[in-house]
Formats: sequence, C-alpha cells, structure tokens
Amino acid sequence: MSEHKTVAIVGGSGYAGGEFLRLALSHPNLKVTQVTSERSSGLPVSMIHPNLRGRTNLKFIKAAALEDADIVVLALPHNSAAKRIAEFEAKGRVIVDLSADFRLKDPEVYRATYGEDHPTPEKLGEWVYGNPELHREELRGATRIACAGCFATSVVLALYPLVKLGVLLPKDIIATGLVGSSAAGASASDGSHHPERAGSLRVYKPVGHRHTAEAQQELPGHFPLHLTAISTPRVRGILTTAHAWIPDGYSDRDVWSAYREVYGNEPFVRIVKVAKGIHRYPDPMLLDGTNYCDIGFEMDVDTGRVVLMSAIDNLVKGTAGHALQCLNIAHGWEETMGLAFAGLHPA
Amino acid sequence: MSEHKTVAIVGGSGYAGGEFLRLALSHPNLKVTQVTSERSSGLPVSMIHPNLRGRTNLKFIKAAALEDADIVVLALPHNSAAKRIAEFEAKGRVIVDLSADFRLKDPEVYRATYGEDHPTPEKLGEWVYGNPELHREELRGATRIACAGCFATSVVLALYPLVKLGVLLPKDIIATGLVGSSAAGASASDGSHHPERAGSLRVYKPVGHRHTAEAQQELPGHFPLHLTAISTPRVRGILTTAHAWIPDGYSDRDVWSAYREVYGNEPFVRIVKVAKGIHRYPDPMLLDGTNYCDIGFEMDVDTGRVVLMSAIDNLVKGTAGHALQCLNIAHGWEETMGLAFAGLHPA
Amino acid sequence: MSEHKTVAIVGGSGYAGGEFLRLALSHPNLKVTQVTSERSSGLPVSMIHPNLRGRTNLKFIKAAALEDADIVVLALPHNSAAKRIAEFEAKGRVIVDLSADFRLKDPEVYRATYGEDHPTPEKLGEWVYGNPELHREELRGATRIACAGCFATSVVLALYPLVKLGVLLPKDIIATGLVGSSAAGASASDGSHHPERAGSLRVYKPVGHRHTAEAQQELPGHFPLHLTAISTPRVRGILTTAHAWIPDGYSDRDVWSAYREVYGNEPFVRIVKVAKGIHRYPDPMLLDGTNYCDIGFEMDVDTGRVVLMSAIDNLVKGTAGHALQCLNIAHGWEETMGLAFAGLHPA
Amino acid sequence: MSEHKTVAIVGGSGYAGGEFLRLALSHPNLKVTQVTSERSSGLPVSMIHPNLRGRTNLKFIKAAALEDADIVVLALPHNSAAKRIAEFEAKGRVIVDLSADFRLKDPEVYRATYGEDHPTPEKLGEWVYGNPELHREELRGATRIACAGCFATSVVLALYPLVKLGVLLPKDIIATGLVGSSAAGASASDGSHHPERAGSLRVYKPVGHRHTAEAQQELPGHFPLHLTAISTPRVRGILTTAHAWIPDGYSDRDVWSAYREVYGNEPFVRIVKVAKGIHRYPDPMLLDGTNYCDIGFEMDVDTGRVVLMSAIDNLVKGTAGHALQCLNIAHGWEETMGLAFAGLHPA
Repeated sequence: MSEHKTVAIVGGSGYAGGEFLRLALSHPNLKVTQVTSERSSGLPVSMIHPNLRGRTNLKFIKAAALEDADIVVLALPHNSAAKRIAEFEAKGRVIVDLSADFRLKDPEVYRATYGEDHPTPEKLGEWVYGNPELHREELRGATRIACAGCFATSVVLALYPLVKLGVLLPKDIIATGLVGSSAAGASASDGSHHPERAGSLRVYKPVGHRHTAEAQQELPGHFPLHLTAISTPRVRGILTTAHAWIPDGYSDRDVWSAYREVYGNEPFVRIVKVAKGIHRYPDPMLLDGTNYCDIGFEMDVDTGRVVLMSAIDNLVKGTAGHALQCLNIAHGWEETMGLAFAGLHPA
Repeated sequence: MSEHKTVAIVGGSGYAGGEFLRLALSHPNLKVTQVTSERSSGLPVSMIHPNLRGRTNLKFIKAAALEDADIVVLALPHNSAAKRIAEFEAKGRVIVDLSADFRLKDPEVYRATYGEDHPTPEKLGEWVYGNPELHREELRGATRIACAGCFATSVVLALYPLVKLGVLLPKDIIATGLVGSSAAGASASDGSHHPERAGSLRVYKPVGHRHTAEAQQELPGHFPLHLTAISTPRVRGILTTAHAWIPDGYSDRDVWSAYREVYGNEPFVRIVKVAKGIHRYPDPMLLDGTNYCDIGFEMDVDTGRVVLMSAIDNLVKGTAGHALQCLNIAHGWEETMGLAFAGLHPA
Repeated sequence: MSEHKTVAIVGGSGYAGGEFLRLALSHPNLKVTQVTSERSSGLPVSMIHPNLRGRTNLKFIKAAALEDADIVVLALPHNSAAKRIAEFEAKGRVIVDLSADFRLKDPEVYRATYGEDHPTPEKLGEWVYGNPELHREELRGATRIACAGCFATSVVLALYPLVKLGVLLPKDIIATGLVGSSAAGASASDGSHHPERAGSLRVYKPVGHRHTAEAQQELPGHFPLHLTAISTPRVRGILTTAHAWIPDGYSDRDVWSAYREVYGNEPFVRIVKVAKGIHRYPDPMLLDGTNYCDIGFEMDVDTGRVVLMSAIDNLVKGTAGHALQCLNIAHGWEETMGLAFAGLHPA
Repeated sequence: MSEHKTVAIVGGSGYAGGEFLRLALSHPNLKVTQVTSERSSGLPVSMIHPNLRGRTNLKFIKAAALEDADIVVLALPHNSAAKRIAEFEAKGRVIVDLSADFRLKDPEVYRATYGEDHPTPEKLGEWVYGNPELHREELRGATRIACAGCFATSVVLALYPLVKLGVLLPKDIIATGLVGSSAAGASASDGSHHPERAGSLRVYKPVGHRHTAEAQQELPGHFPLHLTAISTPRVRGILTTAHAWIPDGYSDRDVWSAYREVYGNEPFVRIVKVAKGIHRYPDPMLLDGTNYCDIGFEMDVDTGRVVLMSAIDNLVKGTAGHALQCLNIAHGWEETMGLAFAGLHPA
C-alpha cells in the first residue's frame, strides 16, 4: 500500500499556503493535487509563487471546485475556517488549520481574544494544538491539527522548559517579538508599501497581542505574559526576547540543564549560546526556510532574571513547517521528512 | 517690499509634493499657504508626511478650494497638469510642474512617447525645461518651469559635458539606472508590497523608458540613447551608469578637463573620482535629502569607452530640489537657498 | 564682538566626531578650525566623511598638533578622554566629551560599570550631564559637558515624566533598545561585515548594558532598570520600548498630561501617539539626521503597565546633535541653532 | 559497491567553501570527511557556518594535515590553488577548483588578466571549464574541474544561445552585473563595514573586470564584451543585464525559440519572461540557495537590440552548486542530486 497522501491546500495564494505548498511539493509522501484561490483561480500557482517555476504545473482552482483529498490544509484568513469547517471536513479525513480558529480550548477566551463567539465551540475539543514539542503524543494519529501561531510559538518554546521545571516566579514576563513583514500576509497595504516600510522599526502591537491567549494556554502558571510586537526591515523571521524570573540560587548551568533535558532530543530545537564569535545567540537571519527554533538565554544572576531568546522563520517553524512536522507525526512518518533544509550562511 | 512668495502645492500627498513641501517650509523666501490632496483633504499634512510633525499646522485642502498664490507647484500624476493648466494659471503667476507634461518641446515626440496627443500643444513653447545646469539663463525670470525627470536628469548630467565638447562618437549609448522604490510613488501596489520588494533587483523597464525622449531632447546628437531601469532595495536614489564612446587619443585627463570646465562652478554637481578609499565613485547612499548630482567616470582606453556614473536623490535633485533650484534662479535668489543639507554619513 | 567660536574636534574620523563636524560646519556661530585623527592625519576630512565633499577643505591633523580653540569636542574611545583631560583643558575653555568618561557622578558606580578606577575622580563633579531636557539650567554657562549616552538618552527621555510625576511603582522596568549598526563605531570587524550583519537581528547585550548606570543615575527611584540591546539591519537609529508600572486608576489621559506637561515646550521632543494611519508611534526611520526624540506610549489598563516607546538618531539626538544643543544652551544661543533638519519621508 | 565518495574541502571557512560544505552534507552520494582552515583549525565548522549547527560535528583542520579523499574541493584565494596543485593532486583523484586559477585555457590571456605568469601553464589543458550547459560532455568522467566564475556564468548563460545561433552582430556588448556583498568574500574590510555598505550602490569595477577573459573565452566571436560590476545592498545574488545586437528581421519569437532550443532541457536554466504580474523577469531575490539561472530578455525591435537578463545566486549557481552539478555529471549521477532546493517566496 502506498504511503502517498493527496493534499488539497485551501487559500493557497497567501504566504502561509504558498509555503506549505513549497514544502509539500518536495515531501516524499505527499502529493499536492489541488490548490485553491478565489482571486487567482485559473492562474498557474507559479505566477503567484515564482519560486515554484518549473516545480509544478498546478493551477489555482476555486474552493467551490474542491474534490476529496487525504489531507486538507486550510490557509484562510482568521475566522474563515471555523465558519466553513463542515464543508472542509466533508472533503478529507485529516484537516490542518493554519489560522487561529481552533487553537484556543476555551470559548470564553476565544471570545475575549477575538471579540466574537466561536462559530463551532463544540468542535474545539477535537483539535490538537499543533506544537510537536509540547503535544507530540496527542499528535500521533491526530486528524484535526490547529497549527500554533508564529509569535506564540517563539514565546512558548522559549519559556516552556522553565514552566515544565516549575521554577518561574509569579512575576510579569515581558516578551518582545521582532517580526518580519511577511507575517502580515500577502496583501499590499499602505503600511506595507516599500518606501514606508523598508527602513521602519514600527511597534504595531504594544499591548493586547492576540497570541497572548494561546501562549498563556500553553504555558499555564501564575506569571502574567505581556507580548509586544515590533515590525522590522526583515521579510521573514521572528526574534523574541522574554524576561522571566526564577528564584535565587539558580545558576546558568541549572538553566542549561533544564533546556537540554527538555530539548536535547528535539530535531528542530537548537540551544544557541556560544561564548565566542559573532553568532552567539539565536538570529532569524540564519533560519530563513528552515524549521528550526533556536533558543538561547542569558542570566542576570543578581536579580534572578533570565533573558530568553528565540528565533524562527515565521512561515516555516512559525506556520507551514510546524504544520508539516505535525503531519509527519500524525502519520507516523519520520518527523523531519521534507524539512531538511539547513538554512543559508551568509544570508 | 518683502521677498516672501506664497506657495500652493497641488497634489501634496505624494512623495514629490511632500518633498517640495519639506524644502519650502525651510526656505527663507517661501511661505507655503496651501497644499491640496483630494484623498486626504481635511487631514494635517503631517499625518501623511510624518517628518513634518511640529513643523507645520497646514491641512490638506481640495484643489477646488485653491486660492491665489505667487507660485503654484503641480505635483500631479502624468497627464493631469496639462489638461487642467488653465485652471492653475488663473491662480498664480509662476507655475512649476513636477510631472512630465511640459518637458518635451515637440508634440510629435510627446505623442510617440506618451501614446496620446498633448492636450495643449500650443503652450509647450512657454515652458523652460527645468535643468539649471543646461538652462540657467532661460530660467532667470521664467514663469513656467517643467521640472526635469529624475532618471533623465541623471543621464543628462552624466553625458552633457561630452556632448557639449562634441566628442561623442555616433555609437549607441547604454544607460542603466538603478532606482529606489520612492520613484514609483506613494501608492501601494502588489509590486511595492514590502515582502515582494525588499530583496528584489527587478528590471522594470528594459527597453522603451519614457525618459529617453527628454534625455535625447536635451542631448542632441547622433548617438542613440538606450535607457534601462532596474529597481533596487533602496527607497531613494538613482545610480546611473552610461557607456559612451569617444575617439582614440582622448585621455582620462581630457575627460576630467571637460567635466571640470562645464561643472567647475556648479553648486550642486560634484565630480567624484577618487583613487583610494571606499567612496571612489558616486553613490546615492550619500545623497539622501541633498540636491547634489555626483558624477564620476572611468575610461577603457583600449576601446574609447567612457563609463559615466551619476548619482542623485530622485526626490531632490531628481524632482523637488531641482525645482526649487530653478525657482531660486527664476526669482534671482541665491541658487542654493533652502538646499543646504549636506547629506549623512554613515547613512 | 563676534559670536563666532572656534571648534577643535579630537577624534574626528569616527562617526560621532564626523557627525559633530557635519553639524558644526552648518552652524552659524561655530567655525571648525581643527579635526584630529591619528590614523588619517594629512587626509582631507571629506575622504573619510564623503558627505562633506565640497563643504570643507579641512584636513585631519594629529592630536599632538592641536592648537587652541574656544571649544574642544572630544570624540575618543571610552576611557581615552579622561586619561588625557588635562591636555585638552589646556587647549580650550569649553570641553564637550562625547564618550562615557564623565557621565557618572559616582566613582564607585564608574568602577562597577567600567571595571576600573576612574583616572580623575576629583573632576567628575565639574561636568554637567549633557541632557538639556533634564539639566537645562545647569547647562547655561557650562564649560564641561559630558554628552549623554545614546541608548541611555532614549531610555531616560522615555521614562522621565513618569519619574518626575512620582508615579512609578517599585517594579522592574524592562527596556529593550533596537540599535543601528553605526552605534558600534566606524571600525570594521567580523561582526560588522556586511554579509554577516545585513539581515541580522542580533541580541548583543541581553544583560549588563553599561548605559544602565547612567540611566539609573538620571532616573532615581526604586524601580530596577533592565536594559537589553539588539542590533538591527538599520544603520542609524534606536527604537526603545520600556515597560513600566503605575498604580491602578491612572488613565491614558493622565499619562498624556504628564508627558505634555514635561515636554510641551521642548523643541526636540515630540509626543507621537496617533490613532490612525501607518505612523502611529515613534519610528527611527523618520529621524535620520534630526535631533528629535519622538516619544509615544500605550497603556495596558488591566495591569497598570505602560509601554513607553522612544526613537532617536543615535548619532544626532543620541550624540552629536544632543551635544550641540547643550553647547547652544551653554552659550546662550537659540537652542535649535544648527539643528533644523526635519528628516526625510520617505526615508 | 557503494556510490559514496569522500570529500575534502580545502579553505572551508570562506563563503564558497562553506556553501559547498552545506550542499555536500545533504548530498546522498557524498561524505565530507575533512574541511581545512588555517585560521580556524580546531574549531567546529558550525562556529564559522552557524547554519550547520546540529548538522555536522566536523572541525576544521590545517591543510598540512590533509589526508586522502576521493574528491578534493579547493576553495582558496586566487592564485593559491595553482601554486600548490601538485600537493592536492596527491590527495585525491578528482579535483574541483572554485578559484580562477584553471579557468583560462591560454596562458597569455591569464597573464594579461591576472598580471603574472601562470605557475603551471602545462596543466591548463587538463581542466574542464566547469559550466555544464556548455561543457556537459567534457564533464563526464572529468577529474579536473575549474568551476566557472560567478559573474562570468551570469554573462555566459545569458548570451550563449545567441552565440550558438550565430546571430550576434559584431557590436559592443555592454553587460552590467549587480552583485551581492558575499561575492567579495568572508573577510571584513572597510568597504564591507555594515554602515558603509548597507545602503550603498557602489560601482566597484566600471572597466577591466577579470571575468571578461573567461566570458570571452566561452563566447567566441567578434562582439567585444564589456563588463561593469556594481555592488548592491543584497548579500547574495547577481542580476546581469547584457545589451546585444542582432540583425533586422529577428523577432521576439525567434529569440524565444533560440533560448528554448538551447535551454529547454536544462534542469537549472529557466526562461523567465512573463507578460503579467510582478515577477516578470529574472530576480535574484527568488534564487537564494538555489542552483537556478533564470534568464529573460526583451527586444528593442527598432534597433535590433536584445536586452538579456540573468539572475543567479553567486554562491550556488555562481560557485558551489555549479561545481556540485559538474561533479554529479562527472560521476554519472543524477545531475540535480543534492541541488533540489526551490528557493523561497517571499524572501
């Protein structure tokens, strides 16, 4: 029996869908058979994603023309997938949603975060939060995967070992994400106009970032999380710093141990903390196109403050690669399959 | 009698109009009294041009509300100014047009270049081509100034001394302009979307650039000019290289002499050709905000090829600063008035 | 009696000295007569600072050849000025030091911060900390000005009104500075090599930044300050976010009032907090070459957290412009003299 | 019998060697056993090439410690490989040289180009010029491969079909290469210092580029080639435009046919010429990390001028990928092996 699974990507003209398409086209066990786009239906996908020239002859179709597939990947704007979920469930056995629609477990939190009632609250329990480092066991055999948010992923993976170790003091954690322009999507706007954006360092969410809810869900405890998001001149990538507090007496070595214990066998988490050279901490520059989350830290021993640093490619480990890693686990395939790109240097 | 002249800027929400506004607000003899924008009327100009916060309380008005001014500066899209020129002529004695509408002398060339008949061909003779280095005498007392195109300016100033000297061989001249994103204007588009543009080197006009017509008009002779335009990751600036051909026997020193003779007293043209260091030739990096055109060259003595290089800020020497320099001349003011900014290093 | 003062710049081949030179050359009351550089002595200053081509014929001299001047500006590496201060005091009546040598009042803090004893602790009391917004009165007639550090300035100006108002809770303040590459100086290094740096977001000082000491000195109180510095792809500019805590019951409007009261008449501090548009908060993109510090904030009313944001050009309001503003005050000149550049948009 | 070949990389701390290492580590038939670096011997290769963290435990060794390998890849500075070639020939059966030492067939041309006699002119005939599109047959079984220069490759592949077709008129061809900063290598210098380079458009070789010789060797004919090289803010990539001349009567469709005939079956050459959208011509933005050479053109039918455009990643198709493609051919392996990366969008 063939291992090949057919894949339909719904909303494939955006950056998240395009990135999943790129990865899936090179994945040995996947075969992309359909990609939808209302705006670009009829056009070759390589017209919108020109990196795929010569790689595929697929053309965009309308979602209404969607036929069955083994796996349906939803890359739709927020609040679109949930409203139409029955339609997509009819098309495929495994559904991966790249949006925020099924990440939160608690409908109340959803309402507080997104300002409206969840359209299908009864289904929230069916979905696994798509973060392999925290939910690997639940992902095995999963058929509903709600891919984690990109900024949330960078925050959650940075802090998770300290939470798991149970050492975080109940003090406020300030997390700052430096985010590339691709995170805002593929639609042109005044704010994304190159002359207004190229040299900009723009705080776009000083308070109230929506990923706070999912980060807090995944990192339970008594330490309020505060997320601030700043756009940078990069196209891809998130660099997150998070300031957390641990009790007196913990050493740098203790923190090392915690991270090594939790992440030592993770294929896509690297601890980056080097004494010498110019690449001492995580840097998104090195991660474009890769599924790595690099994590480093530094301690301010006088105050018990730990400065966590994490870097990801928002479109890969932050979205499409993370989702593919989940799919690999769900199907029992090698977890790194189709995610082998090492990244470039220089870049 | 006061030297102060009132200025109305028509189409002030774009980059050319905004740049003229910035310069005029600091000009000792100008007083900007009106700035129009159909889209942003009612808003403070500093909402659209945030560099002017605290510099002016002006608000945008609609063009229909325009009142008289000593000087009317038209910063409208191509083919808008000419159609409405009578309307603007009724408002002010001196008209400066930053668009392409009145640059070409020959209506036939206009039609060939812009694909339609000029709406007021009988007026073309009234306008001075706004390039002080070539037309300083005509500009004195001028009341109709058609500001030169940005790419054209970089080509014309690079080649002019060789044309004036009469040494150019009748061979094809290849001129390549590397252009910043601001040259395409302030309106967002798919192509200006930051993720699509930030890392791009995009040939956007390999053949048939419209500035060819005005460059050829200003550089009469038997050397066909071929202009190619490429967009770069910079926001401002044009770097132009032009390959021209001169007879055997001309030395590097001869070319130096030609450029020094023509430009030696020009306040805004610098000859940049340095044997050592890292800033040996013109570089737009050094010119953001300045009215300089830096010009350099190198000879390929074996073949009689001269590689000319010129750099400008497309919005200053390429548009608004050039226009202001023309206005200074037209009014008999110090030519450098309001144009003193030296540029930054590093930048 | 002429108002002109002669200026000697010691260490003029670096970025701080070069920026002071640029500003001083355009200042109506200053005349730069000497610029020293050990490495480049004999060369025209415009060879190293190519933006000054055609602006000055000055050549670098060695410091040993320094003659008297009314004002001596020291732009030397850290710990160089203090060791040789007697030498420079013999040359001019007014000394401005752009380094960190005379900023701290307390020799113990100096030792803790810089790891060695201050060479002339007895002189620390003679110097005014060069921040006009906090020390304007002390600066009048001052002859020893220790220009404030760039990151410190962005932190101090962001937080000062809350400190002055006395409302800060005794909770940890996390301040993160996003810093351009020029802050590391003009010397090439492995880390500043363009291919390694252009796309980088690099945490270079997660804990223990030296400017903490001067920021804490200028912002006395019981709120521990924690500074983290991250390098960005920009060349100039610092964007700082600082998370501070105020009691329940304070509203957004209260914070507005505090900032307006303290900064309402400041010529170079602008409060930037706009509800609409794409330029809602401070952005260093808009400040290259200007002496502005733009400050904004946003409140998280549920938690009493205030997110302060400030932006400066590290070489102008962060160094040379700030120093010039101090000099203007010291001499009783118009405070904005020579600092009128509005900045560019787009940039 | 295993297909695996061992590889030693000599000079592996530079960008060319590091890129070959990255590709070779993922190549199914290669096993990198040694990487030399005099400066970094003893350090993990991932200290210098941080993208390889977690990918390899190799450490740099000194060249003196080199042991035998099936394939020796030389990534040394110009004029180093040739002088020591006997030393390396003793270590491996197949030698790939990434430098310029063995590209030129004619020792006279070598002397004219590099200013000194070739140290081993008798060996020049043993080497195949490493360009699969032109020399695929010679590469089969080859044991000496002189990898083509990056700028030369972009010029040669752009013009080759017109040369092969024999239609080029004997007129001067102007080729302009826009080059990323990685092309200058991994050593920091004043000119590569980020603040001096980040915003720069710098003509670094207006005339006399050394790759002219190899391009002319590979494109024999009576059309003088003139190469101009300009550095851009990008890290990787070359965009080349070349202006060539063909007889009257040739249409756009004729040129299409020529390129399709020559490149239609090439795995790594794509003809990019699209009527609509924002990605109409080759753009190095899309090629980082890939082995593609994208080629487009536009005709100026009035003058018989063809504007060719080509884009490559200078470190992949311009160096290490090109070399690996040659090695695949030499060993009779699938030509695309290890070179499957599609490139990113957005990037």
